[in-house]
Amino acid sequence: MSGEFNFIEIIRNRARHNRGILQGIGDDAAVISSRPKYNLVITTDLLIEDIDFKRDWISPKHLGHKALAVSLSDLAAMGAKPKWVLISLGLPENIWHSNFKHRFYSGFLSLANQHRVALIGGDISRTPNQIIIDSIALGETPHGRAILRSGAQPNDHIFVTGTLGGAARGLHLLQKGERVSTKRKRLKAHEELLLRHLKPDPRIDWALMLCKKQLATSMIDISDGLSSDLMHICSESYVGATIEASKIPIDPNIKTSEDALSLALNGGEDYELLFTVSSKNIRKIPKLLNGIPATYIGNITNKTKVISIIKDGRKRRLAPSGFKHF
Amino acid sequence: MSGEFNFIEIIRNRARHNRGILQGIGDDAAVISSRPKYNLVITTDLLIEDIDFKRDWISPKHLGHKALAVSLSDLAAMGAKPKWVLISLGLPENIWHSNFKHRFYSGFLSLANQHRVALIGGDISRTPNQIIIDSIALGETPHGRAILRSGAQPNDHIFVTGTLGGAARGLHLLQKGERVSTKRKRLKAHEELLLRHLKPDPRIDWALMLCKKQLATSMIDISDGLSSDLMHICSESYVGATIEASKIPIDPNIKTSEDALSLALNGGEDYELLFTVSSKNIRKIPKLLNGIPATYIGNITNKTKVISIIKDGRKRRLAPSGFKHF
Repeated sequence: MSGEFNFIEIIRNRARHNRGILQGIGDDAAVISSRPKYNLVITTDLLIEDIDFKRDWISPKHLGHKALAVSLSDLAAMGAKPKWVLISLGLPENIWHSNFKHRFYSGFLSLANQHRVALIGGDISRTPNQIIIDSIALGETPHGRAILRSGAQPNDHIFVTGTLGGAARGLHLLQKGERVSTKRKRLKAHEELLLRHLKPDPRIDWALMLCKKQLATSMIDISDGLSSDLMHICSESYVGATIEASKIPIDPNIKTSEDALSLALNGGEDYELLFTVSSKNIRKIPKLLNGIPATYIGNITNKTKVISIIKDGRKRRLAPSGFKHF
Repeated sequence: MSGEFNFIEIIRNRARHNRGILQGIGDDAAVISSRPKYNLVITTDLLIEDIDFKRDWISPKHLGHKALAVSLSDLAAMGAKPKWVLISLGLPENIWHSNFKHRFYSGFLSLANQHRVALIGGDISRTPNQIIIDSIALGETPHGRAILRSGAQPNDHIFVTGTLGGAARGLHLLQKGERVSTKRKRLKAHEELLLRHLKPDPRIDWALMLCKKQLATSMIDISDGLSSDLMHICSESYVGATIEASKIPIDPNIKTSEDALSLALNGGEDYELLFTVSSKNIRKIPKLLNGIPATYIGNITNKTKVISIIKDGRKRRLAPSGFKHF
């Protein structure tokens, strides 16, 4: 079995050398040249086995994909173009000596190459039991153009990309013992739900369009859940929001179930984008971008940190009830 | 007890807002503005409880210091000026509900403030058992001036800062049950050794001077051990090296012990800088910089990946025998 330095050498040779990299993998640190008149955007996401995922639920390849996807989703939430990534990987000794690391990097690098993101560094450590992943992604926006959580204004319209609630139902199905079959060509509804949880797609096309055309006043990705993530925007922008239950784009695979609305509001891990648009720009928001819709779900109000939801003609207060670690 | 979002708010208010930060803690990602004509240098270091440290050996404050110090040492090894840091922290639930996190950040931010490094982001997760830390540090060098491992040339002189072997002896003492007393004002020799392991000082002053005056042809920090880290330079530079045992600056607190040379060669975690200087520049290397010496220990040769050590007039081959995770 190869030692850590041999393995680093293999990965090093598979990492793309482009994108202003002066020194990639293989030194004490990576050296990059970012463009003048651009800002650097950087995020880090920790995934811990048995907390954020179970080894039995997710294939190493999907885990590699997801580890990068959640960080790319954070960059998308800023409107940033992803360019570079580092990954810290902690593995128990028996996992190190399996083919896990090759399959993990296969999923990771496949998503990286799809978006022309270069792997420039990272760290490898042994752990006593759990697989630990920290994915660090860097991107760029034109100077001063990052889309923050803090820019929402009263009367802005609230939009969400894609559909919501599917990832949370996928998690329930995994907990019940359902698994992805790799054999079938056409996915069944429940497999689509599993993949919503296991293999999220960061909404990079939407992010880059919104940043380029300066259409979003604020943006966040839905990782904790719509109710919680909308509250993050309201807190940072000192505003409130009113949304309409009937407008929320619930995942079609869960639409008929009783808890569909609750999953869409509080489920989390959908990795869709939630963004606000001033009324003068709403007609510039396309219905679809590369097959992914954006849906108007409500408006920003001046009631600081108060979110209301209208359902069946009744308005009630919506508490943030998404995922919390502590 | 405070939830994670409350705690993030506390840390956010203690992070320094300077150094070209457009968005620090509190959004999906951090946004920074790096200077034109400078390169960005970035590194990440994973510390895993029971592998890299024991909770019983190191105080939360020292752990916070060390988590940042190891990353700053990587930046120093590139000649980079440290400017920004992100930290991912995984904590078991009982540790989250203790005062660990406050003491950890106290040590972390104390070192950060000493070097005017701004905390701009990170992640927090629950873990089943272990404390997990990933420290991500960013710095700058003037364009094209990062000091790589790959620049050593035959006949270059090899230097090392500070002294070696102390951290490895400190680790032995910790394993034997020795602990740091916080009461005494003057440290005893064994406590100095413990602190060499627990509270390393990154050699930032040396790094910045060497980069500014363009004196080092290659550089690495000694984290795995002199024999291993010198081999990293030799591998990346396609050169060899001959060092003299009598010139190696062994930690004065271990000098008289039998295994002193072996600790200095293979012990690791000293976080001193190992660098090479072309013969025309060796007179420009000061004996001391802010109290920290640099010592000439040997020369680079043209024998690719062959390191020899001269001891008592005899020359033998030196194998890299430092720390490996796998």
